[in-house]
Amino acid sequence: MALHAYLQRVIREGALKVRMPGGETLTFGDGSGPPVAVAITSRRWLARIAANPAMGLGEAYMDGGLVMEDGSIHDLVDLIGRNGKYRPLKRAGALSRWWLDRRLQANARLAARRNVAHHYDLSVDLYRRFLDPDLQYSCAYFPHPGASLEAAQTAKKRHIAAKLLLAPGQKVLDIGCGWGGLGLSLAKAADVEVEGVTLSREQLATAQWRADKAGLSDRARFSLTDYRDVEGPYDRIVSVGMFEHVGRPNFQAYFDQVARLLNEDGVALIHAIGRADGPGFTQPWIAKYIFPGGYIPSLSEVLPCVERAGLIVTDVEILRLHYAETLAAWRELFAAQREEIARLYDERFCRMWELYLSFSEMAFRHRSHFVFQIQLAKTIDAVPRTRDYIAEAEAEIQQARAMRPLASVAA
Amino acid sequence: MALHAYLQRVIREGALKVRMPGGETLTFGDGSGPPVAVAITSRRWLARIAANPAMGLGEAYMDGGLVMEDGSIHDLVDLIGRNGKYRPLKRAGALSRWWLDRRLQANARLAARRNVAHHYDLSVDLYRRFLDPDLQYSCAYFPHPGASLEAAQTAKKRHIAAKLLLAPGQKVLDIGCGWGGLGLSLAKAADVEVEGVTLSREQLATAQWRADKAGLSDRARFSLTDYRDVEGPYDRIVSVGMFEHVGRPNFQAYFDQVARLLNEDGVALIHAIGRADGPGFTQPWIAKYIFPGGYIPSLSEVLPCVERAGLIVTDVEILRLHYAETLAAWRELFAAQREEIARLYDERFCRMWELYLSFSEMAFRHRSHFVFQIQLAKTIDAVPRTRDYIAEAEAEIQQARAMRPLASVAA
Repeated sequence: MALHAYLQRVIREGALKVRMPGGETLTFGDGSGPPVAVAITSRRWLARIAANPAMGLGEAYMDGGLVMEDGSIHDLVDLIGRNGKYRPLKRAGALSRWWLDRRLQANARLAARRNVAHHYDLSVDLYRRFLDPDLQYSCAYFPHPGASLEAAQTAKKRHIAAKLLLAPGQKVLDIGCGWGGLGLSLAKAADVEVEGVTLSREQLATAQWRADKAGLSDRARFSLTDYRDVEGPYDRIVSVGMFEHVGRPNFQAYFDQVARLLNEDGVALIHAIGRADGPGFTQPWIAKYIFPGGYIPSLSEVLPCVERAGLIVTDVEILRLHYAETLAAWRELFAAQREEIARLYDERFCRMWELYLSFSEMAFRHRSHFVFQIQLAKTIDAVPRTRDYIAEAEAEIQQARAMRPLASVAA
Repeated sequence: MALHAYLQRVIREGALKVRMPGGETLTFGDGSGPPVAVAITSRRWLARIAANPAMGLGEAYMDGGLVMEDGSIHDLVDLIGRNGKYRPLKRAGALSRWWLDRRLQANARLAARRNVAHHYDLSVDLYRRFLDPDLQYSCAYFPHPGASLEAAQTAKKRHIAAKLLLAPGQKVLDIGCGWGGLGLSLAKAADVEVEGVTLSREQLATAQWRADKAGLSDRARFSLTDYRDVEGPYDRIVSVGMFEHVGRPNFQAYFDQVARLLNEDGVALIHAIGRADGPGFTQPWIAKYIFPGGYIPSLSEVLPCVERAGLIVTDVEILRLHYAETLAAWRELFAAQREEIARLYDERFCRMWELYLSFSEMAFRHRSHFVFQIQLAKTIDAVPRTRDYIAEAEAEIQQARAMRPLASVAA
């Protein structure tokens, strides 16, 4: 049977039991680690999973076609992830690449707004339940193992602020400003003028509410604007966890716009998820249910566009495993609030999100995903000659205690 | 006249006077800055320069067709460099790219050895006259402005050692080991076993002599070996200022070999010159007279090969202007020893080298060349999660004063 052969090829480590619709139980792996047992509840679901595991497994879990009998969905995803090294890497061929670029990642303005709304217009009441108090919905920076999520998100903002080389009065653009946490922090800590743009009405409302509440509405302004429509110029541009939504066909337009908006002595910092193993595909279930229009680039897809835009790369930091830790923290907070979230949405939604969080964590832990922070400039001397300034600026900001969450969104 | 029109288009800043073979003097630029005056000594030279300035100017200077009448060759090159922003960037078309790849950068084993010999088999008696006492013939790392060349080269070795995360007993491969300075320092400072490979007999002889002299021949071994023929495996691989000689057609082979030679938990550091403005050409005069087979890559040419080799980028530092400072220091030392060097070689050789050093400095100061240090690994947790370890290790090494030149090559 197709699924049997597939799992036998793919699952070599760990202990997986699958109870089939007929009642038969199949066993896979070498028996190591905590046992994971699932049941497939009907022949129809079995056929769907076998025909297209990448989509079918996620849909089956959401809709009750696959039920956990021992261990959690996270244990299952982690087991699959640990066995990733036995799966051959899928490289995108030219034709399928063309099709995906057209079909999934076009992200013209209207599609971009719809794609963003799909995820980010979920109520802030959902996000505040599993994010830190500042609603940082991107990879945290753990300065040492065991740092709390809140401390790591504060450290992330410090790290970014340091790399931006901020000075009072500068105009800063935040592309994909989320619920305003980073923009408000920069405005407050460095006395800069921040303009944040988002395509999510929910995020905009929250960001504006927080700016008001913190008395910063004159220095931190937010608007519902496509990055392609921003005017500028700016002294600094920051974009955190937004590039993942740009889509491959728009990479050049994105960096051309950064170059156009940035002053001659300006500095930009792009913080986004990347994949170490070269150009790939967006996981189909993720593309359909979680991040329509999204695409995780490899550095080799980003840098040609940076160079053609006339921007100079001045630093590239690669954050490995920080996002795995971040996602683990979100997953635990989500689990602790599961009942509340199920009341807000429903059980199916909870299962979908649990799978999404575990799946993402697995990609960072086992599938060589990472976060890159690319610092960009237009002239060769826009940033200091050594990187020592980063730690120095971080220490200063920390001493000033300037990155605390402003107007956090409590229940 | 062609040259007149060309210079009028290209020289907009500065003050350039050109005395023509007929006696007429032409003036270019806006008159700012120190005056530079040259004479073209014959109609034949004028025609050669006009027909192909990129090659003709250098040849004319070497062979007496172009004589400096006011200012130095460095002033002339700097003036041309400052005006670089008015010259359209030449992008390599597919056909010329193919031709250059075949013709100039093939670097099969025999050609590679010949190309290396052309430059690096010059007597160590030349190099010791303008390099630091450790004969570091690559970009130094200036921890603060005004650091001496020697201090900056020592800091460079510290910086690299820190990024290599060395531990006693590790096997380290140094691809392109030069006169052994880095390898000997690492063996001594970190108690590792270094194997250095070079294709230059002169470099090999000096490196072995220094290892003997420092009592390190058991821990620092050097050989005349093509990187493609090294066996391995190694815990660490370092390659400083060698990738520039690999040639575009061999980039994939180079990183495939690094991946093959590196242990599963290994770390590699590649330090090389890059260009910010995307794929380009090797300057023809440099390719003919200084570095046959050489090619300066952009990051967008390097990263696809890294990814296809299965290596994970764990950090990319971009050193801007450090090489301009390094080259300025070499140029000054060269000038101070000019008479001696002219006695070793001849006047033409001195002019060729002065032009090469000035031309290179100009590329870093005005044409957005930089040095990249790419740290590579095979697993996502081979290096610490934050970059803080680099400064910490540097401080430790500095305290131990472990990077002093060993067995320096005095006159």
